[in-house]
Parts: sequence; structure tokens; C-alpha cells
Amino acid sequence: MKTILLTGFEPFGGEPLNPSWEAVRQLDGQRRGDHQIRAVRLSCAFGQALTELEAALAQHQPVLVLAVGQAGGRSELSLERIAINLDDARIPDNAGAQPIDSPIVADGPAAYFTTLPIKAMVAALREAGLPAAVSHSAGTYVCNHLFYGLMHEIGRGRPGCRGGFLHIPYLPEQAARHPAGTPSMSLSQIVRGLEVGLDAALHHERDLRISGGTTH
Amino acid sequence: MKTILLTGFEPFGGEPLNPSWEAVRQLDGQRRGDHQIRAVRLSCAFGQALTELEAALAQHQPVLVLAVGQAGGRSELSLERIAINLDDARIPDNAGAQPIDSPIVADGPAAYFTTLPIKAMVAALREAGLPAAVSHSAGTYVCNHLFYGLMHEIGRGRPGCRGGFLHIPYLPEQAARHPAGTPSMSLSQIVRGLEVGLDAALHHERDLRISGGTTH
Amino acid sequence: MKTILLTGFEPFGGEPLNPSWEAVRQLDGQRRGDHQIRAVRLSCAFGQALTELEAALAQHQPVLVLAVGQAGGRSELSLERIAINLDDARIPDNAGAQPIDSPIVADGPAAYFTTLPIKAMVAALREAGLPAAVSHSAGTYVCNHLFYGLMHEIGRGRPGCRGGFLHIPYLPEQAARHPAGTPSMSLSQIVRGLEVGLDAALHHERDLRISGGTTH
Amino acid sequence: MKTILLTGFEPFGGEPLNPSWEAVRQLDGQRRGDHQIRAVRLSCAFGQALTELEAALAQHQPVLVLAVGQAGGRSELSLERIAINLDDARIPDNAGAQPIDSPIVADGPAAYFTTLPIKAMVAALREAGLPAAVSHSAGTYVCNHLFYGLMHEIGRGRPGCRGGFLHIPYLPEQAARHPAGTPSMSLSQIVRGLEVGLDAALHHERDLRISGGTTH
Repeated sequence: MKTILLTGFEPFGGEPLNPSWEAVRQLDGQRRGDHQIRAVRLSCAFGQALTELEAALAQHQPVLVLAVGQAGGRSELSLERIAINLDDARIPDNAGAQPIDSPIVADGPAAYFTTLPIKAMVAALREAGLPAAVSHSAGTYVCNHLFYGLMHEIGRGRPGCRGGFLHIPYLPEQAARHPAGTPSMSLSQIVRGLEVGLDAALHHERDLRISGGTTH
Repeated sequence: MKTILLTGFEPFGGEPLNPSWEAVRQLDGQRRGDHQIRAVRLSCAFGQALTELEAALAQHQPVLVLAVGQAGGRSELSLERIAINLDDARIPDNAGAQPIDSPIVADGPAAYFTTLPIKAMVAALREAGLPAAVSHSAGTYVCNHLFYGLMHEIGRGRPGCRGGFLHIPYLPEQAARHPAGTPSMSLSQIVRGLEVGLDAALHHERDLRISGGTTH
Repeated sequence: MKTILLTGFEPFGGEPLNPSWEAVRQLDGQRRGDHQIRAVRLSCAFGQALTELEAALAQHQPVLVLAVGQAGGRSELSLERIAINLDDARIPDNAGAQPIDSPIVADGPAAYFTTLPIKAMVAALREAGLPAAVSHSAGTYVCNHLFYGLMHEIGRGRPGCRGGFLHIPYLPEQAARHPAGTPSMSLSQIVRGLEVGLDAALHHERDLRISGGTTH
Repeated sequence: MKTILLTGFEPFGGEPLNPSWEAVRQLDGQRRGDHQIRAVRLSCAFGQALTELEAALAQHQPVLVLAVGQAGGRSELSLERIAINLDDARIPDNAGAQPIDSPIVADGPAAYFTTLPIKAMVAALREAGLPAAVSHSAGTYVCNHLFYGLMHEIGRGRPGCRGGFLHIPYLPEQAARHPAGTPSMSLSQIVRGLEVGLDAALHHERDLRISGGTTH
């Protein structure tokens, strides 16, 4: 049986939980079609997160990897288009590191595009009544770091594996402790979004040719 | 047994549903403590909504009224502080009327404050993990129209009745058809919010003295 | 010669300046048509601001009063529609007071509407290329406190005087020290907005009947 | 004398003007230190904009190129960090083309980083009282297309030339015709920002090591 690897992060930035791990853990061991899901929790730390990811890739040999991370302040499920070769931390990570303008891979390419069919995934999510959009920046913190490292690892030795990154909103209980105007999404909606998104990814080898761009 | 009256609106502005009615209908017939909940669906039309409200007040003789309306674009449960004596419609209502700068009650006061303990309700909602805030404007459309009419009706002849207005976000399936960045809240969270908010209102005859203000 | 009174505030909330005073002081002593402008700087303190306003009203006997205040985070010139009888301070004022849920005038009405032709003023500002809008909440801090006190004072003894409140954005040099995404407006644009707005107020005894409302 | 090339765009998306051209044209022919500024107006059209840019590069042989574009809805001067090899047009360009998920250069790298010292430029702008920030996405429309093409052209044959992209807000007269809440910046502030930014770029061969990142 083929394996889908989902990753979530431990909490960071003073939050008591990270919705990415709360969501992916619910799907650990489940099946989508003829694929088995494995969920792994990663440290929110530059370097360490990639070491843990590489161990999970080696152990599970997945055909599809969806890394998930918290994007506090976003309203919808954000399918990331591109990972960039840059660490620029606004706050220290959980190990105390705060790299500024450092490459993730010394001689790596400037960026990697996702190999997931993100337009098809966004279309399926919206069809299912779940707010979703394509995003063109995963930031410059541990999320982008992991996403870049994932695509770099796939690019140099895992030709049958597709990978991508999903940013998710705060949970309501997180937003309830932030200023008014902070959007959120319930855990059950996020988990349903993972299921719908994974199904769309499994059913589309090639992406749909529909616009998902922005003028700036 | 005492009665709580909940009101929701029919859809408007091109939406296929109105989350206010979808939420309050789920509580129709239920009990909170020794109170019975009645839910009524109102037209999204100036004048007509108030006529329907007055009929419901006469029929059910509630001790507490919470009117609920959709506030597309808001992220949290918004407890309205004040209703103003002004209709100024940006779009026509469902009957085609579009009043501009008209008073709701010709010789009525400029405004009415809610008589619900909204600080206590916001505190209870946040404690329950539900994003909530005090709002100082219910707009100038049918929601404010209904809220003003409710408080006017209570003020002139229902001394034992308390009343207020709750604005709620879009449902996720509504936000999924709006541009990226549109926040939403799941129906189950909104319904849970109604329960928590009503319980707080029933348990606080006087409001808590905690800040809920804004500098502008 | 008739007098127009402009008021601005001293800085508050840690800002090194207040754009409202920086703007109105530039028009002190100038004329609009056959009116003379007087600009007065007020303390950002509950009570004290009203005492200073009353002194200025007594001294200058204006026929038109436009009170101006900073609304950090807003993008446009905001003509306030309504002042409410409520102090609810999120932060202490400059004298250290932080009233919560207190009326401004013990037996005063719940609210006063502006008596300025704000629709005509917004239309003139936009026509002049200046972003402007009607606002339905001046908050619950010293700005609303002053606005309510002004309208109360006019209402009980100055029948020939019209009054209102204008909220203005941060200056660019303020926004430059706030997080990305904080809007601003240049001082020359704000001063030009005051001139255009005052001219529109002088030329319209009655307001235009055009929509300026919001659905929530 | 060395040359600085500034580019601006013609209007698009129904706007009567484009602030990028209005701003850069004011500096055409001026000097910053021992550099001469040349300003060129480009078509808002995929392909054609790059053809025009290449002609300008060949003619002026600049040592520094700052391409400027309108980012309606942003509040500050945005120094772009990265150009990506992707056209994904939400609306047709001025020639009617609407590419979706097409590479800009068939075998080009996924992305190019700017070679301008954008952290130093942002720091200088803020110091001068002008709101500014680093941005990690220039979108997927003609602005990003031009930025990528510029960096590709520099990368393959202009080793002494540095290049980058600046996104600027709407002018106030544009925002005055958009919904309330649309931020803007005055033309004189934008022009001053160009001067300050160019001076910072000329004085910093290497960028400052200060954080400009985002967590997502």
C-alpha cells in the first residue's frame, strides 16, 4: 500500500497548541483510496525540522507529502505555490535560532514550485464549501524552510514523490485570545479540508489550467 | 416557563442562505435552564421585519430577545452595543426599498443601548474558545433597523424584557464563494456561541465592568 | 465676521505627535469665504477636553465647529455620523483616567447625530481626489467623548451653531514606525481635506440625499 | 556618468493613471550623486513589457535598475525580495493576453532574488518617515513578469548591474474612487521615497543584516 505523509508542527510564538499538528494527527493511520496516511509532528526549529522530515521520508517512503503549518491571521486554507531558498526569522525559533538572510541549501536553486495540483485542490475545497486559495509566499520562517527542504529532498532523489505545503488559519480558541478581527477555522473544517485536498491531489496527476494568480 | 426569543433573517444580498436563521432555528424549542427558546425567521425588509418582530413579541411574551444577523466580513461573534435611529441603505432590501437618511421612529430617541450584559457575554464566549467582541455599530441597514425597533418596543411597554443584537460571520460555504481573505465561522461554532451567550445573559442581571471600548 | 472653530488633540498612546493638531493649526487665522478659522489644541483627557472646548466655544462663538481626531489604522478622512453617551476606555487617557461604561452626561440622550452635511462633505472630498467616507462609530474614547460633549453643548444653547467630528489617518511618519499594512495620509492632503470639507459644509445648509450606509 | 534606470507602467485594470509612471517620470533627467536617472514607461503587457525593457537596457546601459509598479491595496512602499518564473494572470493584460501557469523563461530558474540592498532601503525609508516594508511576493502578473525578466537579463550578461522592483500604493485620487478602507500614498511621498531608496541603494553595496521576514 502506498503512503501519504502528513506533517504538522509543534506550537510556537507563545501559542498553547499548533493547529497543524492537531489536524494531521487526526488522520494518522487512515486511508484515502488505496493510500495509507502517516502523520508526523515536527519541531518548530530551523535545521531540526528538516532532519526529522528526512527521517520520516526514509521510514515511510511516501508517494505524496503534504506539510502543514499555522498561518495566524489568514482566513482560508492556503495552498502554497513556491518555496524560496531563504531563512529570515522575525522571531527566534523554538531552539532559539534566528537566522537572517541565510540560504537554506548553500548551493540550492532560488526556489522550488510545489508539485501538487494546487489549482485542482483549491477548486475541490471551494466546491466542498471550504474557503481556500493559492498563496505565493510561505514566508521566510520554519514553514518555508521545511517546504523548501522537502522539495529539495524530493528533487534530488525521490522522482515518484509529489510534495507541497498547506497553511491553515488559527483555531477559534486561538483567535479568541487575539484582538478582534482575527479570523479562524474550526478543527473539523480543517480536517475535512485535508481529506478533500488529498483526494483532489490523488485524482489529478496534472493540475487544472484555471487562474489562481494575483496582480501583486 | 419563561421564553427566550431568537430571531434570524432570510437571505439577502445574493446569498443562498443567511447564517442567522440557520443558527437560531437549531435552538427552536430547546431549553436553557428554566427558559424555553423560540426562534423566528424575519424578512430582510425595512418595516416588514419590525411588523413580524412585534407579532412574535406579542405571541411569545419573551423575557429576553436576541436578534441575530449576518455581518459578512467580520471574523467573530459581535455583540452590538447600540442601535441608532437611522435607515441608510447601501443596497435595496428584499422588498426593493432603499431608504436614505430616514429615521426609523419619527420622534424616537437618537439611539438605544442594548440591555443585555454584553461584556459578560463576550467574556464567556472567549472563555469557551469562541472569538467574540463588542461592536459599536450595527450599521444602517435592516439589522440596525430591527435592533432599534426592538429596543424601542421594549422601552415603551415591556419593562421585564431585555434585548440585544448579535452579528455573526459568514458560514465557510459562503466565504468559499467570496475572495480570499473573507473570514467565516462554522455553523456549529455559531450555535454553540448562541448557547454560551444566552447562558451568560441569563446569569448576569448586571454587566461586568471590564473594558470593551475602542479609541476610534 | 463669523467664526469656524477647529479643534485638534495633543498626542496620546505613545505617539510623538497628533496629526489632528498638526493639521488644524495650519488653518488657524485663515479665512474660508467670509468665515474666520480659529484652531484650538485640546488635552487628550476625559472631562478636561470638554472644559477646554467649552472655553473655546465661549470665547469664539463659532457658527461651525469641526472637531478632529486621530484614528490610527483608518485609510481615509472619516466624517462621523453619531456621538454616543458612553465612555469605555481601552487605555488610560493622558491624565491617567480609564472610565468604563460611564455616561458622558448623566441624564443626556443616548446619542447625538452630527449637524454637518457629511454626505455633501464626503462627496466634495472624493471629487477633490481625497479618500473619504461616512463612519458610524467614533469609538468610546476621548474623541467620542468630545464629539458627544460638543453636540450636547450645541443642543442646549447654541441654536445657530453646527458641529461634527472628523477622524483622520496616521501621518506617514507615524505609520513608518508601525507594522507593515498600516495606512497613512500626508499632512498636506489632510489640510487640503479640511479646506474642502469646510467649504462643502458652508455651502450646504441641508445635506445631500445619497447613500453612505453600511449593511453592518 | 553612470545611469540609473527607473521604469513605470502605463495604466491597467480600469485605472485612469498608473502611479508608477507618474512617480518615475518626475525623476527623469535628475541626478543622484554622480548618477543620472533615466525613466522609461512600459506597456502593461506580457512579453511587450520585457521587449521594451531590453531596449532601454541596451540604450542606457544602467548600473542600477529599479522597476516600479502599482500595488493597489498596499499601504506602504514594498521592496520585492524575489521574482518567480510564473505568469498566472487574474485579468487580461492591456493587449488582451491572460497566460495561466506559464513560465516566463522556458528553461529559466524557478526564481531570482533581487540584487538591491532592500533591508538598507527599507531602513532608510522608515528613517525618512516613509512607510516601507520588504515583500516576498510580487504577484504573478506583469509586475512579476517584468521583475523576473529584468533579473534574468542582468544574470546572463550585465554583471555590473543591480536590479530590483518596488511596489507602490494607489494615489489618493485613485483610492477616492475605491471602497472605504483602500489605502493610498501621495505622489510627492512616493517620489521622495524613490529618491531616498535610490540613495540607500547607491550607498550600500552589501545589504544590512536586519530581519525583514514573515512567519508565513
